[in-house]
Amino acid sequence: MSLLVVGSVAVDDIETPFGKVKFTIGGAATFISIISSYFCSKINLVGVVGSDFPKEGIKIFKNKKIDLKGLEVIENGKTFHWGGKYLKDINIRKTLFTDLNVFQKFDPIIPTAYKKSKYICLGNIDPVLQKKVVSQIENPKLIVCDTMNYWIENKLKDLKAILKLVDVLIINDSEVRMLANESNIITSAKKVLRMGPKILVIKRGEHGSSIITDSFIYSIPAFPTEKVVDPTGAGDTFAGGFISYIASKKNISDDILKNALINATIASSFCVEGFGINGIKKLNKKQIKDRITKFNSLIKPPKL
Amino acid sequence: MSLLVVGSVAVDDIETPFGKVKFTIGGAATFISIISSYFCSKINLVGVVGSDFPKEGIKIFKNKKIDLKGLEVIENGKTFHWGGKYLKDINIRKTLFTDLNVFQKFDPIIPTAYKKSKYICLGNIDPVLQKKVVSQIENPKLIVCDTMNYWIENKLKDLKAILKLVDVLIINDSEVRMLANESNIITSAKKVLRMGPKILVIKRGEHGSSIITDSFIYSIPAFPTEKVVDPTGAGDTFAGGFISYIASKKNISDDILKNALINATIASSFCVEGFGINGIKKLNKKQIKDRITKFNSLIKPPKL
Repeated sequence: MSLLVVGSVAVDDIETPFGKVKFTIGGAATFISIISSYFCSKINLVGVVGSDFPKEGIKIFKNKKIDLKGLEVIENGKTFHWGGKYLKDINIRKTLFTDLNVFQKFDPIIPTAYKKSKYICLGNIDPVLQKKVVSQIENPKLIVCDTMNYWIENKLKDLKAILKLVDVLIINDSEVRMLANESNIITSAKKVLRMGPKILVIKRGEHGSSIITDSFIYSIPAFPTEKVVDPTGAGDTFAGGFISYIASKKNISDDILKNALINATIASSFCVEGFGINGIKKLNKKQIKDRITKFNSLIKPPKL
Repeated sequence: MSLLVVGSVAVDDIETPFGKVKFTIGGAATFISIISSYFCSKINLVGVVGSDFPKEGIKIFKNKKIDLKGLEVIENGKTFHWGGKYLKDINIRKTLFTDLNVFQKFDPIIPTAYKKSKYICLGNIDPVLQKKVVSQIENPKLIVCDTMNYWIENKLKDLKAILKLVDVLIINDSEVRMLANESNIITSAKKVLRMGPKILVIKRGEHGSSIITDSFIYSIPAFPTEKVVDPTGAGDTFAGGFISYIASKKNISDDILKNALINATIASSFCVEGFGINGIKKLNKKQIKDRITKFNSLIKPPKL
């Protein structure tokens, strides 16, 4: 089934306790599209870059058969450039600079050929733009929306408007509390479900993740790993692993949602093992499947 | 099998967003003993109180058939008295006062009849005292040790000495990092396992808990509840739920350890539903079993 991915395509300068890279390919839509390419045969990417965007990036997208009709390249423009540093406790990140460049005027026009996309992944961008995307889609089957504290703090009204239109909201545990203005995470989740999404996916970082709907709650741990080299893009990869698993199936059931959560967990576990997209760009289905098998044996409940 | 519980027996003043109580029965050994009484027929309590300790507390212990030969009552002494306040985010606690009183000179002398206890639960007290307890036990089958950041910061050498003598260390996620001086939780856990304990139980608060040994890792979520009235004693109840489940079985296997983690999770979920010991003092086996069944259905993996 066709998956439409809308979000930032960027270049990143990243420093972690394990090294540093400069002008490496990044951005939410990049991570979402690349990980999705392992599960989904038709990926439509909508984003904007400058003419300085590395040729290697375009080559990777093409190798993964990601459709680039929706990737606008602004001549003489500069690509969105982000710089960040992770501290000794790699869970803590400092943003060094955010040069929006051509992304500042990003206006997501959905190519006609993309308007029939069935699965929509709205990367973490301004909720006004997310709404604009949704208004252009003809008959979507599932819309997944990512967001962050910045939009909760600065564009709450617009965020609430897009929440009415999406099926799945992916958000981290502190953000769900912030959005609900509650301290108990279950109470917060229920309150956010009443804002519109039918399905809430809560990321708890190293503590795992949960999926909460009106009919069930399912929580799993993170994949236990000592090899966390660079967390950049882990959340986007998680979102991509989630929606592309669902897009690869015919129907949506509770079990498929739960397996999508496992797939998202494993996808992001590969992401953090390398700088930028290095952890996910050379994967194959067998590697992913093997780690899922290993994970399933870890979460297998004991005999009573 | 016989379970020896050593730790504080106290009175608490507690304030949470849901109310306040004064001079209510508390202390680590109290929570551990009471929850253990549902799983274990022979509980030996070692602690100290003043003559002001509420008669009701003694009555509850006796009703639960908790042996009090090891509970010293100091005539004209005052019981360890703690006061704390939980903020709107109930995960955040402020200690208002800590009057150690008779507990300041607590010197755990194990009654002869207790020296053959097979299961030992060392509540969160000075590691020097924990070691003194262990030296008096004849042939223990399993020793579980609880500790906290205070001892890591102030008595690291003594803590490391007791860690060499215990089988299970129960600790929260920030403390395992602090003890290992590492940021990755899996790396930290492995480092702590090399300090002595064969089994590490990591409490992650509302995110659940993990058990980590040299041969397996098993993580489960917390029981999802909106009714968190008072978290006091939840960690002690967790420890009690863990060891008393094991003590109720003939052998110790990986599956029994995993089920003990589930039992600990459910035990603490009852604890937070009432002030002080109110959430656990009137339980019965069926209530606990029913919630375990519910929890097991929540963590059941999806069909592939």
